[in-house]
Amino acid sequence: MTVVVPTPSRRAIDLGPAVELVSKEEGHRQPLAPEFVSPHDFSPLEVAYDFGRVRREDIEAGPRNIWRYKKLLPVPSDVEDIPNTEPGCTRLVRADRLAKELGVRRLWVKDDTGNPTHSFKDRVVAVALAAAREFGFDTLACPSTGNLANAVAAAAARAGWRSVVLIPSSLERAKVLTTAVYDGALIAVDGNYDDVNRLATQLAAEHESWAFVNVNVRPYYSEGSKTLAFEVAEQLGWRLPEQIVVPIASGSQLTKVDKGFHELGELGLVESTPYRVFGAQATGCSPVSSAFREGHDVVRPVRPDTIARSLAIGNPADGPYVLDTVRRTGGAIADVSDDEVVEGIRLLARTEGIFTETAGGVTVATAKKLLDEGSLDPDAETVLLITGDGLKTLDALGDRVGPKATVPPSVEAVQAALDG
Amino acid sequence: MTVVVPTPSRRAIDLGPAVELVSKEEGHRQPLAPEFVSPHDFSPLEVAYDFGRVRREDIEAGPRNIWRYKKLLPVPSDVEDIPNTEPGCTRLVRADRLAKELGVRRLWVKDDTGNPTHSFKDRVVAVALAAAREFGFDTLACPSTGNLANAVAAAAARAGWRSVVLIPSSLERAKVLTTAVYDGALIAVDGNYDDVNRLATQLAAEHESWAFVNVNVRPYYSEGSKTLAFEVAEQLGWRLPEQIVVPIASGSQLTKVDKGFHELGELGLVESTPYRVFGAQATGCSPVSSAFREGHDVVRPVRPDTIARSLAIGNPADGPYVLDTVRRTGGAIADVSDDEVVEGIRLLARTEGIFTETAGGVTVATAKKLLDEGSLDPDAETVLLITGDGLKTLDALGDRVGPKATVPPSVEAVQAALDG
Repeated sequence: MTVVVPTPSRRAIDLGPAVELVSKEEGHRQPLAPEFVSPHDFSPLEVAYDFGRVRREDIEAGPRNIWRYKKLLPVPSDVEDIPNTEPGCTRLVRADRLAKELGVRRLWVKDDTGNPTHSFKDRVVAVALAAAREFGFDTLACPSTGNLANAVAAAAARAGWRSVVLIPSSLERAKVLTTAVYDGALIAVDGNYDDVNRLATQLAAEHESWAFVNVNVRPYYSEGSKTLAFEVAEQLGWRLPEQIVVPIASGSQLTKVDKGFHELGELGLVESTPYRVFGAQATGCSPVSSAFREGHDVVRPVRPDTIARSLAIGNPADGPYVLDTVRRTGGAIADVSDDEVVEGIRLLARTEGIFTETAGGVTVATAKKLLDEGSLDPDAETVLLITGDGLKTLDALGDRVGPKATVPPSVEAVQAALDG
Repeated sequence: MTVVVPTPSRRAIDLGPAVELVSKEEGHRQPLAPEFVSPHDFSPLEVAYDFGRVRREDIEAGPRNIWRYKKLLPVPSDVEDIPNTEPGCTRLVRADRLAKELGVRRLWVKDDTGNPTHSFKDRVVAVALAAAREFGFDTLACPSTGNLANAVAAAAARAGWRSVVLIPSSLERAKVLTTAVYDGALIAVDGNYDDVNRLATQLAAEHESWAFVNVNVRPYYSEGSKTLAFEVAEQLGWRLPEQIVVPIASGSQLTKVDKGFHELGELGLVESTPYRVFGAQATGCSPVSSAFREGHDVVRPVRPDTIARSLAIGNPADGPYVLDTVRRTGGAIADVSDDEVVEGIRLLARTEGIFTETAGGVTVATAKKLLDEGSLDPDAETVLLITGDGLKTLDALGDRVGPKATVPPSVEAVQAALDG
């Protein structure tokens, strides 16, 4: 007797509205698969959709997490029923005190520190995992130095998957602990992040059952960033802001925020009002900002040297597309020094009670710089994307913050310290 | 010409449905005011309400934060319009993998790490600030060693208030930084937490414009804990769980969860089905657990010695009321060793991808113990309250977690490490 067991590759793939992959450069189409580079033009593959009709009511009736947008994502129709970290639906905070300091009329902060592992990476990893399950993978993997490692290890734990996370062995102990606690296979590699990244690509080729979230399932993974745009629009009452400032690492997030806004307009979920997308980098890793300033279409790789480690990608894969997006929408890109990054962190904390990691400091400080140089319009409604948590980059604060005073335990001493 | 300026004390106080304060022991009533002890029987004062009619639809149409429950809290009717940290509406996660490990049929984790400063303290501080504003205070203050300090400093920053936060000068640098970054008046006091606490009470008496959240506005502050109960019930589809496990520090939170469930039943927002409330302590600070085990009505103070520092209150103010609540509902209280706390943290992380601080480790480990000893019913639907974030107590993990291996940058080495 022969028993035919259906394997994932034999049954139909259900990735909701996703219908195929398309190459970014020349538009070559191919079936949905765990691939990330077009064999025809060697450009990145993107998910193409047949959305059908999507109504606000359907979204509003959905769960309070990113799956309310499942009809706009490459995920199975029953995605919310499978255990996952349930990221998203983070706060959009009206930031009047920060607006006043910056001299902006209407300012909002999208605070993604409220996600399960406190960065936007929970969004992209959740989408990657949902797609990876559909393709029949059983292990979730990534190379990372921080937020992504946390998100992958946590998402795999919650789903009951194995995780393989590769980190440089020099990583700070705090970042090691916050990944290791989820008890996946955390492997420290003697080498720098480039070594780790190269190793990940080799391992992805060798292990058919391993989904490297930012390698072989990257087209699905990166679509998760659209949910930030969807939430901003829904939280504004189904309309688009006039300006948005987004930090740039690989550049994927910035392009996906634009894609998200565009899709909402196309589907009639918002009015297609004009918006301008702005990019933020740390000067110590500012290849896209440099290219923008110099009017180039290509991005020259750099060797990162900045405290904003979560943005320290010297050769950003989506750099050229970021330049396209920013120029097309009428935005701009700027970069800020590490000192300005710390001042950005402190400014946001002091005015709005939100403690962001260095990447958020980059966003706030760059917004200030873009205002000063006149590219960001102070009279236009503006959103800042704050993508990660200050608890993860405490070292960046150095000795610049601390108690106002250390006093003996007496009322008089406290009073003197406060008066002094 | 005389201009009469209305002062806060002259205009009517709007604290929504709150009508007066009542003493817990003998029920003496007095007008709403920033007071916390009854002058008649010296017992704690609690807020009394005239709720009127409250409907599920009104709550469901409210904002996605604790202010959706404003008709059940001592806060002004326009509370959501005033800048605040917007805490609450955190995830209630179905925890099937943890349930399986514990041998429980239906288990939920209420994950309060998603709050703005990543603990439930954002809830109580937000309510305290709203009430304090109504009473005319202009400074938000507290003695604290951690979560409360973060929450007060952040809430004050967001509201544009001054904050005065008193900490022991021996506090770990990470905890100092996460409060200092908000740029309030953080004062380090040479002394232990008892010294700091005593100093706070003296300062509260001397400064009429300072609202010490957990001293002179404590009756309002503590009502914020009810929102955890409200959210659990709403997230379960407007019904009560059969069992809930709550960590005990001062004991206030546990009694307020019970109060919240009770109010929902009284108002007809849920069916008044029976529920049992369980308490969790660390053995190194287990005065309430000891009293429960020994059948006492009074709680004998202890000197805390545990890694669960956010629960380390040796003389818990609400200890006797916790005993009442737990006994009345048919629950139980147990305590766990520091080793068990760490195992609890790791168990929750490994099974559900949720990284909690030591207090959450206490809750998980105590739930396990209560199941083992037969007090927690494995067949009854159970909720665990996870009240704070693992990023804040990294030191507790010590050397117990770390990379699986450190290897050279080669595919073979990674493979060998994974196979080994």
